[in-house]
Amino acid sequence: MREHCHLPQSIGVVGFPFSKGQPRTGAELGPGALREAGLVSQLESLGNHVIDFGDVELEPVSRDEPVMGVKNPLAVGTANKKLSDAVTKLLKQNQSIITLGGDHSMAIGSIHGHAQVEPDLVIVWVDAHADIHTPLTSPSGNIHGMPLSFLARELQDYVPDLPGFDWCSPCISVHDIAYIGLRDVDPAERAIIEKFGICSYSMQEVDKFGIREVVDRALQQLDPSGTRPIHLSFDVDGMDPSLTPSTGTPVPGGLSLRETLYLAEKIAETGRLSVLDVAEVNPALGTDDKKQMTLSNTVDVTTTFFGRHRQGNAPHGYEIPRP
Amino acid sequence: MREHCHLPQSIGVVGFPFSKGQPRTGAELGPGALREAGLVSQLESLGNHVIDFGDVELEPVSRDEPVMGVKNPLAVGTANKKLSDAVTKLLKQNQSIITLGGDHSMAIGSIHGHAQVEPDLVIVWVDAHADIHTPLTSPSGNIHGMPLSFLARELQDYVPDLPGFDWCSPCISVHDIAYIGLRDVDPAERAIIEKFGICSYSMQEVDKFGIREVVDRALQQLDPSGTRPIHLSFDVDGMDPSLTPSTGTPVPGGLSLRETLYLAEKIAETGRLSVLDVAEVNPALGTDDKKQMTLSNTVDVTTTFFGRHRQGNAPHGYEIPRP
Amino acid sequence: MREHCHLPQSIGVVGFPFSKGQPRTGAELGPGALREAGLVSQLESLGNHVIDFGDVELEPVSRDEPVMGVKNPLAVGTANKKLSDAVTKLLKQNQSIITLGGDHSMAIGSIHGHAQVEPDLVIVWVDAHADIHTPLTSPSGNIHGMPLSFLARELQDYVPDLPGFDWCSPCISVHDIAYIGLRDVDPAERAIIEKFGICSYSMQEVDKFGIREVVDRALQQLDPSGTRPIHLSFDVDGMDPSLTPSTGTPVPGGLSLRETLYLAEKIAETGRLSVLDVAEVNPALGTDDKKQMTLSNTVDVTTTFFGRHRQGNAPHGYEIPRP
Ligand SMILES: [Mn+2]
Ligand SMILES: [Mn+2]
Ligand SMILES: [Mn+2]
Ligand SMILES: [Mn+2]
Ligand SMILES: [Mn+2]
Ligand SMILES: [Mn+2]
Repeated sequence: MREHCHLPQSIGVVGFPFSKGQPRTGAELGPGALREAGLVSQLESLGNHVIDFGDVELEPVSRDEPVMGVKNPLAVGTANKKLSDAVTKLLKQNQSIITLGGDHSMAIGSIHGHAQVEPDLVIVWVDAHADIHTPLTSPSGNIHGMPLSFLARELQDYVPDLPGFDWCSPCISVHDIAYIGLRDVDPAERAIIEKFGICSYSMQEVDKFGIREVVDRALQQLDPSGTRPIHLSFDVDGMDPSLTPSTGTPVPGGLSLRETLYLAEKIAETGRLSVLDVAEVNPALGTDDKKQMTLSNTVDVTTTFFGRHRQGNAPHGYEIPRP
Repeated sequence: MREHCHLPQSIGVVGFPFSKGQPRTGAELGPGALREAGLVSQLESLGNHVIDFGDVELEPVSRDEPVMGVKNPLAVGTANKKLSDAVTKLLKQNQSIITLGGDHSMAIGSIHGHAQVEPDLVIVWVDAHADIHTPLTSPSGNIHGMPLSFLARELQDYVPDLPGFDWCSPCISVHDIAYIGLRDVDPAERAIIEKFGICSYSMQEVDKFGIREVVDRALQQLDPSGTRPIHLSFDVDGMDPSLTPSTGTPVPGGLSLRETLYLAEKIAETGRLSVLDVAEVNPALGTDDKKQMTLSNTVDVTTTFFGRHRQGNAPHGYEIPRP
Repeated sequence: MREHCHLPQSIGVVGFPFSKGQPRTGAELGPGALREAGLVSQLESLGNHVIDFGDVELEPVSRDEPVMGVKNPLAVGTANKKLSDAVTKLLKQNQSIITLGGDHSMAIGSIHGHAQVEPDLVIVWVDAHADIHTPLTSPSGNIHGMPLSFLARELQDYVPDLPGFDWCSPCISVHDIAYIGLRDVDPAERAIIEKFGICSYSMQEVDKFGIREVVDRALQQLDPSGTRPIHLSFDVDGMDPSLTPSTGTPVPGGLSLRETLYLAEKIAETGRLSVLDVAEVNPALGTDDKKQMTLSNTVDVTTTFFGRHRQGNAPHGYEIPRP
């Protein structure tokens, strides 16, 4: 009776226990905490076939001095090379991959690996932040605020070589990105968004148009044909800090749980979700209550990307029993 | 000066201190807690004529073994027979009745009693849950998840006889029901909703259309003529658990206070609210703060169903005083 | 790089440390608390030229008995005369003025002083309350619930002379007011709103139309030409008490942070914001957490009225640096 009517997916789960793209320890505990919160079994209860491939094995990096103010370039670069390889390999064996971060620098490896298999992918980036600083514009030097600059072809003239990043060839266009949820965008990032006309739905647009129209417009603008594979990069700080407080850079005024579930339901309905990143859960931040809430809401959103519906899921061919 | 311009109602209030439709004790304390929170005086301050008829007197039931997994059938059946009789009787003496639960199994008696006086009633069911399991589909055996299956004519072929329910003849059609707020619907319930095309606005539709359109559509679909009496069955878990935490089966992502007030204002404006159930307040659950918040929000919603307006209520024929 | 593209404003800030328009002490601490929370430096970081003119100097008033039930008339009247003079003077030297209250009786002086320089002003009144009681209709006698009655020409037949108010000639029409956020409107206030057809968007209308349409409609109705100076009188209790709990008369079901930021962004975009009142912050109410949240949200809203954008602020003529 717990069978469901949506097409069951074969889903590969892989953890990326890495936090050197930003200064706070704890994000490396994200994959373990999400598993303990029941992510895999809840995905399975929806009828999906789920394989947990464990964590990407990361090795400590010695001598990793800042370069042009950019912190931990070698660690971030080499770890993301491994993630890229893992995503490429696993995506050939499964319909969809969930990557569990880890800080959002993980999108470098995840999108790069995805693009090796699906060069035609589009990216929906759900985040309070634009994460498109170049190494030269970032005020902080934290690479979790830069991943898109390493990936977009149009930005390569602005991105200097960094140790650990030689493998990372650009693989997307800025026009393959749609932002949803932005509300803390640095001036240089805004300048990049404007210069290249990047598709951006900040919280102002969510307030103006409503989540329904924002999701419709973003998908339409990214891919009018409705045929391209979707990379959904979900920074949990896209949601409001009252919902996902255990994260490193919370910003008030974010997406509600309902808006995020709506987005996830609509992405699931496309049938084209290929890779989902779950980034910036930091179980070391906040009280136990806040941590539990962060994990519970993140698991609910993640499972909704893979078939959970608030209207309910009717069993296929189900007959109501008679006495 | 505290007179108001909406048509004052003669309202009968009756409590149903019963909780055996589900496993947690405490819901039987709902009627008393709502009265202590000032429900009656606040209804009166809006100009309504209110009579509190006290609680339905319930007697303990001996030997009430589960039948086909269904728990406390005799207790639920006999208590609801008393509630049905009380609602029928009081509705002949008052324009409107408020029934204070108690768990949501109370809707069996309340709707049945209502239908004896107003056979043409329609039902707006505000709830996180669909409460339309049959005794044979319910995973839990708790009757508060089944009331609609006992009442709807179309479902009688699927509902076995239970001890205590011989009085309960079906009195509504599945097409007389409109759900608002669903977000935790079991597979068999979804199958029933789909098979019979029951009008259902889950939180996905609330997010998609907005509360204004959801209320308009639901009322239009139930009764295009706008003439039929309304039975509003309000499970407080339809609201978000941040607003009504003291309830047995909270589900995140519910209606906001504002959306619930909007719904209540619109129902009040119809002038056709005949019976309002207030179900699933459980004052035994949660801290004192949470209990107070649950009661305060529930009282605000209830009074809004009977004339409170956020725009204010202008006194009829009021003249602004001059010096 | 922190330069911004919106037109930088020359902004004068003036405090009004006054709380005798209502019974709770603490609102007189509002100006100091908002400054300590970083208001001025955050306004400057957006590129504005800000001068803090300190607080209006207020003297104690002896013998101030209630008149017709109205409390502290002499204190409120004389303090507001000083505020009016200060606003008039400072507005001649600066493009915009922010007045930091203080309870909302401050609007008497602030709007009066504004009108001496800009007689064509319009008022957007963001508040849970209508604040349009006359001295003869107010149940409480607190003048913070009456400011608009002293200012509107159409209401002068209903307003008796009070000690301390002889300077206060009416300077606006009721048709120059648009309310946003009302949800606790007394019957006499509603009667005034209806009699004079005052433009009012209560929370019911915000729920019905959405904040986008409410802001558009309010601005259009106030000033179809889009040329008149705007007086934005912001009572922090317009926002939901979960966001600004440290205030004297909180009412559940208010504007969200996002809706308030949206409103502020749209007002800023008009380029016509002339005076902003920030009223009813009471740092003496609530826990430290609640006080910090109140201040932080109030500062965020205030800076958004003067150029902060959730989409980011692109530096004017900015060139992305190359390696
Ligand atoms: Mn972020
Ligand atoms: Mn991010
Ligand atoms: Mn329920
Ligand atoms: Mn229910
Ligand atoms: Mn006010
Ligand atoms: Mn107020």
